[in-house]
Amino acid sequence: MFGGIETGGTKTVCAVGGDGVVQERVQFPTGTDPAALVDLCAQFFANRELAAVGLGTFGPCDPDPDSPSYGRILTTPKPGWSGVDLLGLLAARIAAPIPMTTDVTAAALGEQRYGAGVGVEDLVYITIGTGVGGGAMVQGRLVHGAQHPEMGHVLMPWTGPRGVCPYHGNCFEGLAAGPAMAAREGRPGTEIDDDDPAWDTETMIVAAGLHAITCILSPRRIIVGGGVGSREALHRRLPARLQDSLAGYLPVPDVVAPALGSDAGVIGAITLAQDHSQG
Amino acid sequence: MFGGIETGGTKTVCAVGGDGVVQERVQFPTGTDPAALVDLCAQFFANRELAAVGLGTFGPCDPDPDSPSYGRILTTPKPGWSGVDLLGLLAARIAAPIPMTTDVTAAALGEQRYGAGVGVEDLVYITIGTGVGGGAMVQGRLVHGAQHPEMGHVLMPWTGPRGVCPYHGNCFEGLAAGPAMAAREGRPGTEIDDDDPAWDTETMIVAAGLHAITCILSPRRIIVGGGVGSREALHRRLPARLQDSLAGYLPVPDVVAPALGSDAGVIGAITLAQDHSQG
Repeated sequence: MFGGIETGGTKTVCAVGGDGVVQERVQFPTGTDPAALVDLCAQFFANRELAAVGLGTFGPCDPDPDSPSYGRILTTPKPGWSGVDLLGLLAARIAAPIPMTTDVTAAALGEQRYGAGVGVEDLVYITIGTGVGGGAMVQGRLVHGAQHPEMGHVLMPWTGPRGVCPYHGNCFEGLAAGPAMAAREGRPGTEIDDDDPAWDTETMIVAAGLHAITCILSPRRIIVGGGVGSREALHRRLPARLQDSLAGYLPVPDVVAPALGSDAGVIGAITLAQDHSQG
Repeated sequence: MFGGIETGGTKTVCAVGGDGVVQERVQFPTGTDPAALVDLCAQFFANRELAAVGLGTFGPCDPDPDSPSYGRILTTPKPGWSGVDLLGLLAARIAAPIPMTTDVTAAALGEQRYGAGVGVEDLVYITIGTGVGGGAMVQGRLVHGAQHPEMGHVLMPWTGPRGVCPYHGNCFEGLAAGPAMAAREGRPGTEIDDDDPAWDTETMIVAAGLHAITCILSPRRIIVGGGVGSREALHRRLPARLQDSLAGYLPVPDVVAPALGSDAGVIGAITLAQDHSQG
């Protein structure tokens, strides 16, 4: 048995299982008190025999074991979380190795091993919801690099009203995330019908983000999920729009919806634990 | 001893050596007759004992050994080269294994092992010259993916006159390559002094390209070379401009000039051969 923790921007999921199966799961608000959250996680894992517990966390975080800030949440506007040694807090309470990555990279791993990416070693998982984030695998390995990808912050070709990202304005997240769509359309995406032309604009922006990812990483498949990203309205428009954007110069990756739904991250975290234990 | 072949857009270099050292090298125009070029390469390698010969070629090409078009040049406007089985032609004349990658990925490998990227396992090599191309390494491994990266074709945030790429207009290559700069400024970059504000514009575009690469791959270092990309005028402006663009949200990768100059590609090709032989 292996454990998995997915600390997301709003909710945290703890689960146990293995081989892509979740046997038991609990969920808490991530909240603004890391020690309290870690306490809830520790209670869930107490008295279980676990070979390892994988962690997939919101970022920015430091997943580099060779770095002095390994396991910490880095500077974030999220109240209570800036600089928190999340891995250290967990390790003090959980008597098992805790390999870690980002939440979206864990989701990429989960989908790659047990979901919409089975058999595909080079893929990207993108979530478009309250923010935009992406995780990547190259030859079946997680991509971290200097810190970790922040795919939501690629600058977009866009000449309309300025996007909502406080750092970059017109980046992928600043134009395509739920709040950006709501600001542009004057109502949230949940209130926008699949046939509304607002989805043509949204699809154009998402296609530009996927265009950048395709040029730089050449993934075979891109899994697009999240509250906005899972919408049928987007998925039925996206492949043709991405093909138009790439203009025949590059092979068009498959664009698919997640198969594991909201469990992708925690299944990925469990998989990380299982891979860690099994070398 | 190992061999290396770099087939670039205009010139082809063949060399022998090992451990990052070129012992002997020849150079030919790439030309429009693949069979004639392969003949020249084969003559250079004839009567040498080589454990392997690495190939780094211009693209688009297929470097996937499991693909039916492995080793071919794909559809290209380059006269004489569309669909040519370059690897097959070489293999018919050279009695050694011929591992292959793209020219810029070979350059990334060469610089990573023996040049400006020593000790850095996650890096990108970008060349800005007659075109813009990039090669990447993740955890010390070459990134190919579905085909290979085409980093020059990321769309740019840009509201000025349309760029020169026939496929995408305002992509990185369409705005930053030598012909794009010449079209924008009315004279080639070689005639533009380092203190000319034309370099501010050029740097802004290159920074946007590097911003996209940083978000998607999170490299620790980006090596920027090529006729335009090696200019001091660019390198002295680029780090600050990239930092501004990333706006404190992401760690800024090192931006450095190549250390191997125009030999990066062929040294990378030799290294590919050496790695192949030594497992």
